Order: sequence, then structure tokens, then C-alpha cells
Amino acid sequence: MSDEVTQEQGAHAHARGEAGPHGYSGDKAALLGRLRRIEGQIRGLQRMVDEDTYCIDVLTQISAAKSALHAVAVGLLEDHLAHCVVDAARAGDPTAKVKEASDAIARLVRS
Amino acid sequence: MSDEVTQEQGAHAHARGEAGPHGYSGDKAALLGRLRRIEGQIRGLQRMVDEDTYCIDVLTQISAAKSALHAVAVGLLEDHLAHCVVDAARAGDPTAKVKEASDAIARLVRS
Amino acid sequence: MSDEVTQEQGAHAHARGEAGPHGYSGDKAALLGRLRRIEGQIRGLQRMVDEDTYCIDVLTQISAAKSALHAVAVGLLEDHLAHCVVDAARAGDPTAKVKEASDAIARLVRS
Amino acid sequence: MSDEVTQEQGAHAHARGEAGPHGYSGDKAALLGRLRRIEGQIRGLQRMVDEDTYCIDVLTQISAAKSALHAVAVGLLEDHLAHCVVDAARAGDPTAKVKEASDAIARLVRS
Repeated sequence: MSDEVTQEQGAHAHARGEAGPHGYSGDKAALLGRLRRIEGQIRGLQRMVDEDTYCIDVLTQISAAKSALHAVAVGLLEDHLAHCVVDAARAGDPTAKVKEASDAIARLVRS
Repeated sequence: MSDEVTQEQGAHAHARGEAGPHGYSGDKAALLGRLRRIEGQIRGLQRMVDEDTYCIDVLTQISAAKSALHAVAVGLLEDHLAHCVVDAARAGDPTAKVKEASDAIARLVRS
Repeated sequence: MSDEVTQEQGAHAHARGEAGPHGYSGDKAALLGRLRRIEGQIRGLQRMVDEDTYCIDVLTQISAAKSALHAVAVGLLEDHLAHCVVDAARAGDPTAKVKEASDAIARLVRS
Repeated sequence: MSDEVTQEQGAHAHARGEAGPHGYSGDKAALLGRLRRIEGQIRGLQRMVDEDTYCIDVLTQISAAKSALHAVAVGLLEDHLAHCVVDAARAGDPTAKVKEASDAIARLVRS
């Protein structure tokens, strides 16, 4: 891993106010696996369009990719609450972390 | 292009009840371009996770990818209405095409 | 029914380019019944807040009301496609109706 | 207020592990005001359907009601994080509260 990455880890650990390298480390491999499957779904969509697949079938695949993105987002949010918000609550004032999380939820619900 | 692809084109043209090879042919290059950008966003997400980017920033990028998928889906739906539903209306009974389109909308809204 | 209502019916019939009084007339009673149930859900939410119901339970009820609104919207869209878009396709150029429908879908998906 | 309501307040206060009567007490009047406006929107929808308003205009109003419900939900979630999750974090193990919140987020995103 490069120095740059190590610095980002440091920033992230700092943001969470604890020593561990990252909030989603435990599930990092699983998370990357899910994102790779979504990448495969998007490439599948390109193939479908390239092969003039019936549009309703393309739309079904888009809905599936959207659901998979949702699942990743909700998992990340759960992780964020369990680490960043909880750590901030224990360290003192979690107001900023809570606001940040609920803004992310609002963006997700509306996107 | 393989025989299999040619057959799929035929099926699609048939489904739309007209001679043209595919409903989204005019915008096919643009559509593929958008899907490739979304693929890039998903790969960017993997990089962010791999580099332990702060989870809120990952969530913002997920919302952006979701919005881009939405735009593709709405564009496909508009195309589907303008071609498949309109052709079916002119050819006779569009009931099945309309039901199919509204089922796709329902899936999209809930996904 | 008042003159004003009759005028609105006329405008709607005109918009759809046919003689019938309204596109969702067949399901009008059912549609009103669903909206009244949603109104009951919203009043139930007020009661829950007034009685300091646990916030997660309030959120569950909000999700239920949102789903019910979705079902109404998708039903209206199906009706719109089956009447307004189909009539426009048969009468000549449905481009404006198709654009209007897909704009409504885009608003719905993002709201 | 009835005994039943008082008991619910107690249960809610207990769930949050503190003495205050309810998590959204500060914003309760504002929250009720927003829900009453949404109730008005739903009644407006019934009037629109009853008067055969053009379906696209009904759909626009549905999208507005959905957005208003979203805003209420996100506000409740922020409140829940700021009170229930933060209190649980300080009192000991917030795992159950965090899971409960992320389940509510998942339901909201999908509804």
C-alpha cells in the first residue's frame, strides 16, 4: 500500500476518533466483493444495450443494480453509526456526526 | 457480432412491431457512454473502500451512482413509451405493453 | 357537482383527446378509497407523535404511508399510459404526452 | 392526557435510557404541523381525483406529498440518532439501537 493510502487511513481513523485503521475494515473484503458484483451488473447492462436487449429487460437489470447499491449504502450507514457516531457520543459531542449521517441518509433517500 | 446477437435484435424489433433494429438505436452511443461512466463510478467506489475513504464520502458517491442509474432508467422508459407503447397503440391493443411498462416503473420506484 | 368541476372534466377530456369524462373514471371509487386510507395513516402518524410513540415505530408507519402513495402513483401512471398516451398515439403525434409521462416518472422516482 | 399515553411516554423514555419524556419533544409542535400539512396534501389529492384533475397534475402532487413524508422521516431519524443511539452509546452497548436504526433506514429507502 502506498504512503498516500496510509495517510488517508490516518485521516479516516482521526475522523472516527479512535486508533483503528478504518470503520469498515472487518467487512472490507465483503464490501469490495459486493461492489465488484455491481460493476459486473453495470457491464452486463452495457452488453444488453449493445445487443439491443428488450428495454423492459434492461430496466429490470437496472432495478437490480440499484437494489444492490442500496444494500451497500445501508451497510455502510450501519457501520458509520456503529463506529463514527458511537465513538463521537462517547468522546463528547456527537452533534456534528449525527448531522452528517442524517444528511447522508437524506441524500440517499432522494437519489 | 454473433448470430445470437442478431437473433436478439430480431426479437426486439418484433416486440416493437416495426422494422427498425432497436428502440434506443438513436441514443445507443449516448446510453453506452452513460453506462460506462457509471461503471467508472462503481470502480471509483471500490478504490475509495480499498483506501479506507471516510464512509460519508463513500455514501455521497453511492448516491451519485444511484442518480446516474435513475437517469438511464428514465431515459429508457421514455424511449420505451415512445416506441413500444406507441407502436402497440397504433397496431391494436396496447394493454399488455402498458402493463409491462407500469410494472417496470413500479419495480424502479421500489428498487 | 359544480360548474367549475364540469369545466375541469372538460379540460381533462380535451387533454386526452376523447369524449369520456376522465381517464381514471373506472377506478375512481377505488382510488378515492386508497387515498382516504392514506389520510387515515397520516392522522395515525399525528396520533403517534402526539402520544410520544417510539420513533422507530413512527418511521415504520411513514414507510407504510410512502408505499401506499407509491401504489397510487403507479396506478395513476398505468392509467395515464393506457388512456392519454395511447389516445395521443392513435390521434397522431404522442411526443408531448410521452415526454410529460416520463417527466412525471422522473419526479416520482426522485421524490 | 390519559394514563395509557403516560405509560407510552414512560416506555419511550425508558427505551432512550434517560429521564426526559420523549426524543422529539423539542420539535413536537413543528413535527405535528408538518404532518398536518401532509394530511392536507392527501385531502387535496382526493379533491383532485374527485374533480377529475389531469392525472399528471395529480402525480405531481403525489411526488410533493412523498417528499414531505421523506423530510419528516429524515428529521425523525436525525432525532433518533441524536437521542436513542447516542444515549445507548454512552450507557454501554448501542449495537441493538444501531441495528434498529439501520433497519429503519433500509425500510425507508425501499418504501
